[in-house]
Amino acid sequence: MPPIITLTTDFGLEDEYVGVTKGVILGLAPQARLIDLCHTIRPQDIRQGAFILQAAAPYFPKETIHLAVVDPGVGTNRQLLAVRAMGQIFLGPDNGILTPFLQDPLFAEAIFLDCPHLYRQPLSTTFHGRDILAPVAAALTNGAGFSRLGIPALKENLIKLASPTLQIDRIRGNIAGSVIHIDHFGNLTTNIHQRDLAGLTDDPASIQIFHKKQQVLGLANAYASRTDGQVLALIGSRGYLELAVARGNAARILGAEVDDPVRVTRGKKG
Amino acid sequence: MPPIITLTTDFGLEDEYVGVTKGVILGLAPQARLIDLCHTIRPQDIRQGAFILQAAAPYFPKETIHLAVVDPGVGTNRQLLAVRAMGQIFLGPDNGILTPFLQDPLFAEAIFLDCPHLYRQPLSTTFHGRDILAPVAAALTNGAGFSRLGIPALKENLIKLASPTLQIDRIRGNIAGSVIHIDHFGNLTTNIHQRDLAGLTDDPASIQIFHKKQQVLGLANAYASRTDGQVLALIGSRGYLELAVARGNAARILGAEVDDPVRVTRGKKG
Amino acid sequence: MPPIITLTTDFGLEDEYVGVTKGVILGLAPQARLIDLCHTIRPQDIRQGAFILQAAAPYFPKETIHLAVVDPGVGTNRQLLAVRAMGQIFLGPDNGILTPFLQDPLFAEAIFLDCPHLYRQPLSTTFHGRDILAPVAAALTNGAGFSRLGIPALKENLIKLASPTLQIDRIRGNIAGSVIHIDHFGNLTTNIHQRDLAGLTDDPASIQIFHKKQQVLGLANAYASRTDGQVLALIGSRGYLELAVARGNAARILGAEVDDPVRVTRGKKG
Repeated sequence: MPPIITLTTDFGLEDEYVGVTKGVILGLAPQARLIDLCHTIRPQDIRQGAFILQAAAPYFPKETIHLAVVDPGVGTNRQLLAVRAMGQIFLGPDNGILTPFLQDPLFAEAIFLDCPHLYRQPLSTTFHGRDILAPVAAALTNGAGFSRLGIPALKENLIKLASPTLQIDRIRGNIAGSVIHIDHFGNLTTNIHQRDLAGLTDDPASIQIFHKKQQVLGLANAYASRTDGQVLALIGSRGYLELAVARGNAARILGAEVDDPVRVTRGKKG
Repeated sequence: MPPIITLTTDFGLEDEYVGVTKGVILGLAPQARLIDLCHTIRPQDIRQGAFILQAAAPYFPKETIHLAVVDPGVGTNRQLLAVRAMGQIFLGPDNGILTPFLQDPLFAEAIFLDCPHLYRQPLSTTFHGRDILAPVAAALTNGAGFSRLGIPALKENLIKLASPTLQIDRIRGNIAGSVIHIDHFGNLTTNIHQRDLAGLTDDPASIQIFHKKQQVLGLANAYASRTDGQVLALIGSRGYLELAVARGNAARILGAEVDDPVRVTRGKKG
Repeated sequence: MPPIITLTTDFGLEDEYVGVTKGVILGLAPQARLIDLCHTIRPQDIRQGAFILQAAAPYFPKETIHLAVVDPGVGTNRQLLAVRAMGQIFLGPDNGILTPFLQDPLFAEAIFLDCPHLYRQPLSTTFHGRDILAPVAAALTNGAGFSRLGIPALKENLIKLASPTLQIDRIRGNIAGSVIHIDHFGNLTTNIHQRDLAGLTDDPASIQIFHKKQQVLGLANAYASRTDGQVLALIGSRGYLELAVARGNAARILGAEVDDPVRVTRGKKG
């Protein structure tokens, strides 16, 4: 089977932008298998794009090609990248959106795209997803060699997003992190991984989680393991600590926003 | 050709949840053909999920596999089901979302899923669409035998949604039903089927339809067969009585909501 | 490979309407390759549907079949059309939505669909996308001859949308056009093509663009080539003059709407 090509963009659903990107790919590589990851990244929100793509990539098979098009600098002198990591390929601008893959332990190689013979002509200054990334993805689908698509890039020199602060004090039993994503259900994903919690205490029932004036004791196993409307904490499907409300919208009820501080303490010993 | 797999969820479009479900399926069954039915079911609205899937299934070919993931009880002791009906397969939680297929005259068989060797590891407590239903759908696509995926379930013991009240008085010529869905255009779908109307009178022009203070005389043939802005009634594409506004949004104009009562009377004899 | 079938509709994403259209196609032509162009055309907005489809079609390969279903007149005596143009096929109602292809220099042929043996039975009066266009698209995918699907239509007799006014005065160096689309980013697309500007002056830096009280001097190369928040003008990815705001939403900032007048003057000679 040909590789899967996923698309993550801030194009929204009101225009033909997603469709024409697919049209260009399929015109060049009719056998391509296209999967929409997300097209509702907030306009120009590189960080959200990186988060969604990082959360999704591990669930795709090796050889998958991911297009990441959140590209406010299109048409300026920003470069376009192709990155090999985790046995997959990631295409996007050098603006930080590929940070998770540059920093992945399974990072293999990065290149600046430089294969103008592949680009759509006339090349626009406003839509490189269509004019450059789509034909490059098609070429990879058709078997083009990765290294031939550009020139090697030192990952140290590439733009990377700052990681949100995460302070872990194992002695005192405190973690200071933050909300890094609010999902469709209003659940708050933090940057505190279940491994961080496991390192803090053996007793998940004793930990306390703080967000603004809200305090939650212990980890729930499931969204429905608390009474409807109650605030709860659990390990979400991405492996990180989440705050949620049983059958409710936590972001709305807690007045939460991305970057809100979240603290965890070990609580009293049993 | 491999079977079609459709997806009906309350995941929304802002997260990677739909994408990773597809990634898991395609990683195991690369030949699968995936179709999105709807991902904007209101969070936890099992009834809306059942409605959309019931309305859609008859238009898909035999052997189609439908995933229904509106699953507020994920991670609790609620079971997951696989149902054979209408020559198709339906996968979802035992929370009522598969009610229409359990009650279908072409219902054939239901099982509680019990095939942990297929589940994604580590199995989360928050995302069984990805960790259980996706690999089960992939296994079915790859030819796994239905009955081997779990243990027989008596449909009498499974959770079923209550049907909205529908009272038909053929003697007096009255029907009392309700709005069961409001669509993207603002059209109000009721639970009054065209068969119910046919049993009431031979003269569609004479029936009267009542919603709140609004009264409509007779059935229109088409949305545009009334003046723009006028409220009309017709048999919608799902086979049920609908209230609509020519080139307008009936739900907004009538202040309508799901569960609003709708009455029909035979009207005066000709 | 079988042809691509694209879908452009005002069905929205809350219902099963898109899904069942695909189900019908795949039931008849399992090998079809389906691409969503846009399902968020404003209800009954034929002009927006025509715009999106016209903008997208050039990026699809020859033989592509496009379904355009914005069809307020469904069930009345309006006809359904099939049009061959640009080496592709366009299916939709005779209500103006196919205007761009009837007027394209590569227009080849139009027919009124008349092949009831292909239609889904029972044929509804409310959903011809599902009951007529889907099976016709499937038949074309299966190799049906275009001309056999209906009877020849003289394009002079078909309904066409009026083009928004565009006045070009090369002597005085003025163009009077209008906003014809507002995209997801809030960018304003006008009906003033880059060719029109090229005919006006050799010096893109000297032109002045006027929208309401806003005045912009010169064309930018990229959205990011102005300071964040500044209003700019450039040639958008569709080839037309656009007004945008660097990292902002021009429609919101300028209070713009479709049909707003936009004027261009040559500016002072260098």
